[in-house]
Amino acid sequence: MNIDGKSFRTILPADDGASVEVIDQTRLPFAFELKRLASLDDAAVAIRTMIVRGAPLIGVTAAYGLALGLREEASDEAIERAVEMLAATRPTAINLRWALDRVAAKLREVEFSERATFAFAEAGRIAEEDVESCHAIGRHGAAILADLHQAKGRRIDVLTHCNAGWLATVDWGTALAPIYVAHETGIPVHVYVDETRPRNQGAALTAFELNAHGVPHTVIADNAGGHLMQHGKVDVCIVGSDRTTASGDVCNKIGTYLKALAASDNRVPFYAALPFSTIDWTLDDGVAQIPIEERDGREVSHLTGRLADGGLATIEVVSPGSPVANPAFDVTPARLVTGIITERGVASADAEGLLSLYPERRAAA
Amino acid sequence: MNIDGKSFRTILPADDGASVEVIDQTRLPFAFELKRLASLDDAAVAIRTMIVRGAPLIGVTAAYGLALGLREEASDEAIERAVEMLAATRPTAINLRWALDRVAAKLREVEFSERATFAFAEAGRIAEEDVESCHAIGRHGAAILADLHQAKGRRIDVLTHCNAGWLATVDWGTALAPIYVAHETGIPVHVYVDETRPRNQGAALTAFELNAHGVPHTVIADNAGGHLMQHGKVDVCIVGSDRTTASGDVCNKIGTYLKALAASDNRVPFYAALPFSTIDWTLDDGVAQIPIEERDGREVSHLTGRLADGGLATIEVVSPGSPVANPAFDVTPARLVTGIITERGVASADAEGLLSLYPERRAAA
Repeated sequence: MNIDGKSFRTILPADDGASVEVIDQTRLPFAFELKRLASLDDAAVAIRTMIVRGAPLIGVTAAYGLALGLREEASDEAIERAVEMLAATRPTAINLRWALDRVAAKLREVEFSERATFAFAEAGRIAEEDVESCHAIGRHGAAILADLHQAKGRRIDVLTHCNAGWLATVDWGTALAPIYVAHETGIPVHVYVDETRPRNQGAALTAFELNAHGVPHTVIADNAGGHLMQHGKVDVCIVGSDRTTASGDVCNKIGTYLKALAASDNRVPFYAALPFSTIDWTLDDGVAQIPIEERDGREVSHLTGRLADGGLATIEVVSPGSPVANPAFDVTPARLVTGIITERGVASADAEGLLSLYPERRAAA
Repeated sequence: MNIDGKSFRTILPADDGASVEVIDQTRLPFAFELKRLASLDDAAVAIRTMIVRGAPLIGVTAAYGLALGLREEASDEAIERAVEMLAATRPTAINLRWALDRVAAKLREVEFSERATFAFAEAGRIAEEDVESCHAIGRHGAAILADLHQAKGRRIDVLTHCNAGWLATVDWGTALAPIYVAHETGIPVHVYVDETRPRNQGAALTAFELNAHGVPHTVIADNAGGHLMQHGKVDVCIVGSDRTTASGDVCNKIGTYLKALAASDNRVPFYAALPFSTIDWTLDDGVAQIPIEERDGREVSHLTGRLADGGLATIEVVSPGSPVANPAFDVTPARLVTGIITERGVASADAEGLLSLYPERRAAA
């Protein structure tokens, strides 16, 4: 997508296969900086500290991280160690594991000396497929927005939570891809952007990318979405997902579940947009089965932003001495999800719906 | 309630009737400062800028503000002007209007020369009644917590939103009063404190007062409550109210509705605790009828907190150039409210329930 009219991707491989550059998302929206990852450790740190974040993007970054690690050691044991180390950086998102398993499985057929080069190329293929996949999600989701626009004859108001935009993927995004495609095809779309505490990925990243690309939007506190829906100000909710069960439960940034409840209570359609790599076919009860990452309480108690003089500063906002808890994700049960938008189309949020889009999984199920 | 073992109230009248002192709540939790209000304008500014906030406390402050105004001019017209000016400072909370109407109605029977003194004394009576009322809310609500403790045989986890503690009243609080009474009587209680964006009254005020009084608690992002309820970590929700309809709809800080939805979805009891002065007997459809205050978007885009060096700073956290909306309240429909705790007991959230506690309103209804 564009920043000031210039097209960007979130991750850019070097021609020599020795490194990748990523947009440092901890610096947005006040600074736009690229960061060079040249080793397995660099990649692991980038994922853990959320220099890169978003389920699809961390999958791609992990694949590149594995490739960078193989430049040092390419044995089967080294691959296994690197896969475990990278998979542990973020326990909830499943794309990480999916991307690593895909690269690792193919590497077993490759000679040691070729492994680093092969893995780097394979990471590149995953990145390209992610772009294709997200663009397809955008086309399928935009059809929903076009139908709403046709039915209502006015601007369509979309509410989204967290950042599932192009910054969360290689390009296009998942939840925001339908908005970008609709915007390009002239459908009037306006986005209510949940601030998305903690870490504020909505206020910092979604607002940044929508603004940079020229899509109308309004930032709101996470608390405001229910009120807006009660007053008919939201036509549809679209969110991303960090892991989706075979039964259609959607695990996404903490607070997503609350918006799904409000959508259901106000008969606002609620969609999750995600590539197939986000589906965990082994699970059928998201609340019980998906591990929820507990992150540092400092993400709640401290915020970083821009001072009036333009400098960045970190401030403490919780009363000193008060303990803080910080679960990073929640699970929205399938019963609250109107549909799941994938690169293959829109499925009902249940086992049959997902299997009808992915019939090759029927044998496995 | 106590700060470091010393008992405090939020508003302290001077003996000579020429001023009141209030705790400056915009400075908490990092500074504890009293502010002197010596005129009608001082009181209006204090309410509008939320130096004092919380429905009961702004009612009391408005009553004192009216009294201070009468020291300058005590005509019927001056009273009317002062009432309108103070009532307009915060449009959603109804206690403001209730307290002003009560003082103004009595003043008509009082000679001009006595009006300022009478009004100051009447404001004091409202303050004393608020303390009594909140303490009674505490006793009725604590009985609910005692029953839960008896049934579960372990610590009771309460989730609250915003600050409806003693800082929102003269003393005791509304939603937190049951917690203080339970804590004093030895019932083990732990409070999940919603950060409460924007303005962070949970992280800044509720956490501060619970910590200062020694009540166990944990601050969480507003987004986290649904997840905690899904996993059985919340036994009961208790919130305050800024206006309650005769039919039991509860208007409270934005985001309350989302927690009520999650409570309902997980069969967690959800109570609103409020004095009778918060009930607007003229309304029966909160979503349609209660005016929702829209506050400055800067409350969303900027936060003030403490730097590592101990100084205070204000930072911008929303991507520059992105518009912001800031509705300050939402309405929780009565169907999501398990019960309403008032100074007279616990009512079902419907017209009959409230009228059974306030039978004197039956004639009016």
